[in-house]
Amino acid sequence: MKTVSEVNAHGGVQGVYSHASECCACDMTFAVFVPPQAGKRPCPVVWYLSGLTCTHANVMEKGEYRRLATELGLIIVCPDTSPRGDIPDVEDNWQLGKGAGFYVDATQAPWSANYRMYSYITDELPALIGEHFPVDMGRQAIFGHSMGGHGALTIALKNPARFKSCSAFAPIVHPMGADWAIGAFRSYLGEDENFWREHDACALIEDGARFPEFLVDQGSADGFLDEGLRPWLFEEACKDTGIGLTLRMQEGYDHSYYFISSFMEDHLRWHAARIG
Amino acid sequence: MKTVSEVNAHGGVQGVYSHASECCACDMTFAVFVPPQAGKRPCPVVWYLSGLTCTHANVMEKGEYRRLATELGLIIVCPDTSPRGDIPDVEDNWQLGKGAGFYVDATQAPWSANYRMYSYITDELPALIGEHFPVDMGRQAIFGHSMGGHGALTIALKNPARFKSCSAFAPIVHPMGADWAIGAFRSYLGEDENFWREHDACALIEDGARFPEFLVDQGSADGFLDEGLRPWLFEEACKDTGIGLTLRMQEGYDHSYYFISSFMEDHLRWHAARIG
Repeated sequence: MKTVSEVNAHGGVQGVYSHASECCACDMTFAVFVPPQAGKRPCPVVWYLSGLTCTHANVMEKGEYRRLATELGLIIVCPDTSPRGDIPDVEDNWQLGKGAGFYVDATQAPWSANYRMYSYITDELPALIGEHFPVDMGRQAIFGHSMGGHGALTIALKNPARFKSCSAFAPIVHPMGADWAIGAFRSYLGEDENFWREHDACALIEDGARFPEFLVDQGSADGFLDEGLRPWLFEEACKDTGIGLTLRMQEGYDHSYYFISSFMEDHLRWHAARIG
Repeated sequence: MKTVSEVNAHGGVQGVYSHASECCACDMTFAVFVPPQAGKRPCPVVWYLSGLTCTHANVMEKGEYRRLATELGLIIVCPDTSPRGDIPDVEDNWQLGKGAGFYVDATQAPWSANYRMYSYITDELPALIGEHFPVDMGRQAIFGHSMGGHGALTIALKNPARFKSCSAFAPIVHPMGADWAIGAFRSYLGEDENFWREHDACALIEDGARFPEFLVDQGSADGFLDEGLRPWLFEEACKDTGIGLTLRMQEGYDHSYYFISSFMEDHLRWHAARIG
């Protein structure tokens, strides 16, 4: 692991690191914020998964999470959204390839050699984080935005023993039925939609996956609300399953980091109450 | 005035606006955050001046001021740092021309036609803001970063009746003696250094300008500390003048927005206590 940068911020250290990923067969970059409490004891860790087109940097620069992370003693890990470098990609398509990993392990050529973000996020990166940072891996939470909200919900549903808490900002709750995700699912996972269900929050619940409770914030002025996001489908999926869902429609908010940063505090307090 | 964008954030509205500036003879863009309190009554206004290479966007995206502005009921105005468009500039020089207005009115050709940021910030933009936003112009504060810290200190010292409060992050306190400012001062203001003194915080104080008190934060790990910033010169200038100076060296902090956002809360509370 190589340190790209480390700067003081809000009493802790905001770092950016890179490493040669075996899983993705390329160099990967990620951000970690370490609060001052980590000097004394291992801290709980919160994973933030970003949305389409983003890298680790968007939330690091615009997410406004550091003040709370320091107050609550949380380590925040912000991975990239896809493999990078000299790998398969589609120019001028922001919904497939670089920046659009969708947190799945691709099974189809040419994607399957690198686009293995599910294993990267759930296996390789946690091992690296556990080795190099003072984290208490018994206390993990996960959240994310849009495609990263999809990542957080599906990964939590598939690993309910690992994560004690999960939330999302404007998540893609049903990518199988959303125009901006179908192309990537087909490319990465092939034509058989049964394999897609493993990476669709609504379908996972329908197929029996469970998680204690979710917090979801959604802006009412989000341009992707009616076509790509449709949180009411998730509400429907959770109904009568025993899964607790706190779905909040935030009046007048859009899909941007102005929305995310406005409610970052609520999400981190939600997670801290469950893992802090 | 044209609305470029308006988005909900932290309970208020973060807007970006543009207008044809008479002063700078070009279109200018600026950001204004309006907190929810402004729906009920005029709010005090805080001016944030940015540093070299920045536009209105840097602090808007990375400054983390909105939460506090909403809590404290402050309107935050973030102007650009120079004229823009098809105007004189020097390619590959970030210390002169676009992004490097230094908050002076240039008197020398070819700069004098556009580079009039002092008048823009102190006359034209306040008139526009007063006309279009619910501001209480009797309660104004000003702060800034680096070149914008220089702008805030000098503008406050030259207009002590207008501003009730002033602070700075890593300000250029003595641009006349700083390599990264001398070139611009010479280009904009000519060879006679007597004209430079009007836009140098240390020289202004030496020449008799006064302001009640300043808050200055400076990171100890700031790469520009010893050459370009040297806050101890400002400390020296303020000595025995009756000017109160709270100069805080922040251990391990650099020159970035990670530093600024870490102490944004302290600065906004400082201003609110004086204009809120």
